Amino acid sequence: MYWTLAHRAQKMNPSVIREILKVTERPGIISFAGGLPSPKTFPVEVFAQACAKVLRDDGRSALQYAASEGLPALREQVAAMLPWPVDPAQVLITTGSQQGLDLVGKVLIDPGSRVLVETPTYLGALQAFAPMEPVVEGIASDEHGPDLHSLRHALGVDAEPGDAPQAPERRRLLQLDLDPAHDFPRFMYVLPNFQNPTGRSMSEQRRAALVHDVQRLGLPLVEDNPYGDLWFDVPPPAPLTARHPEGCVYLGSFSKVLAPGLRLGFVVAPPALYPKLLQAKQAADLHTPSFNQRVVSEVLKDDFLGRHVPTIRALYKAQRDAMLDALSQHMHGLDVHWNQPDGGMFLWARLPPGLNAIELLPHAVEKGVAFVPGAAFYADHADPRSLRLSFVTATAEQIQTGIAALAEVIRQHDGHSA
Amino acid sequence: MYWTLAHRAQKMNPSVIREILKVTERPGIISFAGGLPSPKTFPVEVFAQACAKVLRDDGRSALQYAASEGLPALREQVAAMLPWPVDPAQVLITTGSQQGLDLVGKVLIDPGSRVLVETPTYLGALQAFAPMEPVVEGIASDEHGPDLHSLRHALGVDAEPGDAPQAPERRRLLQLDLDPAHDFPRFMYVLPNFQNPTGRSMSEQRRAALVHDVQRLGLPLVEDNPYGDLWFDVPPPAPLTARHPEGCVYLGSFSKVLAPGLRLGFVVAPPALYPKLLQAKQAADLHTPSFNQRVVSEVLKDDFLGRHVPTIRALYKAQRDAMLDALSQHMHGLDVHWNQPDGGMFLWARLPPGLNAIELLPHAVEKGVAFVPGAAFYADHADPRSLRLSFVTATAEQIQTGIAALAEVIRQHDGHSA
Repeated sequence: MYWTLAHRAQKMNPSVIREILKVTERPGIISFAGGLPSPKTFPVEVFAQACAKVLRDDGRSALQYAASEGLPALREQVAAMLPWPVDPAQVLITTGSQQGLDLVGKVLIDPGSRVLVETPTYLGALQAFAPMEPVVEGIASDEHGPDLHSLRHALGVDAEPGDAPQAPERRRLLQLDLDPAHDFPRFMYVLPNFQNPTGRSMSEQRRAALVHDVQRLGLPLVEDNPYGDLWFDVPPPAPLTARHPEGCVYLGSFSKVLAPGLRLGFVVAPPALYPKLLQAKQAADLHTPSFNQRVVSEVLKDDFLGRHVPTIRALYKAQRDAMLDALSQHMHGLDVHWNQPDGGMFLWARLPPGLNAIELLPHAVEKGVAFVPGAAFYADHADPRSLRLSFVTATAEQIQTGIAALAEVIRQHDGHSA
Repeated sequence: MYWTLAHRAQKMNPSVIREILKVTERPGIISFAGGLPSPKTFPVEVFAQACAKVLRDDGRSALQYAASEGLPALREQVAAMLPWPVDPAQVLITTGSQQGLDLVGKVLIDPGSRVLVETPTYLGALQAFAPMEPVVEGIASDEHGPDLHSLRHALGVDAEPGDAPQAPERRRLLQLDLDPAHDFPRFMYVLPNFQNPTGRSMSEQRRAALVHDVQRLGLPLVEDNPYGDLWFDVPPPAPLTARHPEGCVYLGSFSKVLAPGLRLGFVVAPPALYPKLLQAKQAADLHTPSFNQRVVSEVLKDDFLGRHVPTIRALYKAQRDAMLDALSQHMHGLDVHWNQPDGGMFLWARLPPGLNAIELLPHAVEKGVAFVPGAAFYADHADPRSLRLSFVTATAEQIQTGIAALAEVIRQHDGHSA
């Protein structure tokens, strides 16, 4: 071949699941497979007014090159939005929070570096880290988040959670760095709120214990929070970063509370990391579109999110309830289980023993309904029975029809494979 | 330290030159240091209309997630704009052409890979490639572009240019790959049109000879063309990629013909590379803002660029002439030399022997005028006497005043250092 590819390019392959999902894009399919927010929630008219105002007031500046850090006004608005004291100087505006993951990977991952993730975890993060060639390890997780026994085991510490040793053990662990088999992980990647794919949230107790452990052990955290504002009844507990800002990088996004098509996200990084992330940002795309930053900064004025986000919460809660109702009704008598997320866009289900979600998908598509097999979201040891259902884009009627069709397909195949 | 950085993060440092240039941002300074297009050329009203139309016609789609490849309509428009037959399937829309450089680096550069560049070359490309840890080598260049003797020497081939051997020699060279000292370069990065920083263009003869050589030797090219449309009297010769599409990646941008604040660029890649670049793109930021793509697609309709770009050419030509006049007038009697670019935004000058542009800059800033020391733009063996002057953002009066001040500073220091 004329071109010699970088070694890391071998890690860049189209996801098998993505290929499978192409069949779900057929017209007429009721899709619970998407990861898209409901377009009903996009404040189109407010954007139109903001675009017009930004171009009228200072169009030439809005269309010029800008600083890599981001628009100062937007960085201040982001800092003020967050539920702990954040210096705007620690805010880096990114081209979607996906770019935050790319920058974190570039700055923190060497080929062969260990990175810990929840089980399951966000597929896009695995893809963002992959070009930097980490060894990604899934930490066993339950409905409250990552299991701290498994985490401590992965770190080579076998004491009970909460009994974590002080600095001396951290030093001992660092010495073990010389032995590749005991290489200390560069960070753990976590999504504490209404996680994609499962919709689960970390309990207050788990958050407190996790932060307690990672502080003592010196394990950095990368906290991703695209869904935290989409709670249904009560806000989630405080972010991990709020409890331990020096040891965490925090990623946020406007994709779920405003609109994803603007690609606006942000990173909050401690002073020890910010300059390197900034350099990586400058090299990656110079800066996030200045026009988009000004438009969103304009939209955010006068507490627009304070009025807008409650409407998204109400819609998504009704959508979740419609799906829970449909599941209760149609899965009756089947050994199918699902959770009841308190926010976000996704619900996690598990097929009867013997069934495989990847194998079931083509049959479901034949009956006009689609989902994402959960196996897509595991770094290792995938659960073949799991599947992700988005409840936010289908209508209540489609949810009824789609879940009924899914139940029928499961019923048909349940006997076969058991 | 709590955080362990990736090895590549050592390569991510603020540019010394960028730090120096901070002093040039003082109010009242006449700056020829900027790399910004003139905001006078931004079609603000046309953008405002396009934003309104896109949001009115199909706002929800414009604000939703979109395909990583880019908006199909925009990919078709880009393909149709280019002066050789391009399949829209080979067009990847990027978040500015800077992102194209980042993706090329990720897909083609291993740590220690050799990358060839012109002398001097675009600083942003060096920064984009740096995190992938290449060994960058400057190929000696003259006013017509890279010197082919130097190129052939770098490739370990000592025959005359044009006498390049056929495939057998390429095989011999590939065998030498096993010897790190003879590692074949992954690609050569070239800016054939009105290059940043020098403003020079590659002659037709040099283009033909370069393509002839790289085809025979199997050296891939990365062709960056942000300024090609900004010619003053006659269009530049055909791009290198037009002559050898299978062996070239082509990077283009809307930053200089429309506005940089939208961050819209594109890559045209051969089928052997496109899927890997696409995967890297998806991991980097999922997709370029769909709203921006739709707005620019709307702006491009009815040959808007055909009417708009000639106005930029006329403005920049008048600006260049103003600077050439000022230089002739004020540098009289000084051993200062400069070129006469046929397009683009920059002019390249050389101080009298013994003077150093980095050392001169603070004195120039004291007199109220700024430039970029040329040393910023070299991969190696910088010419300390060179400097870059942007002629597009200052007014004709500022150009007169600024060049007069610069001449005065040179005159004052000429005796001292010689």
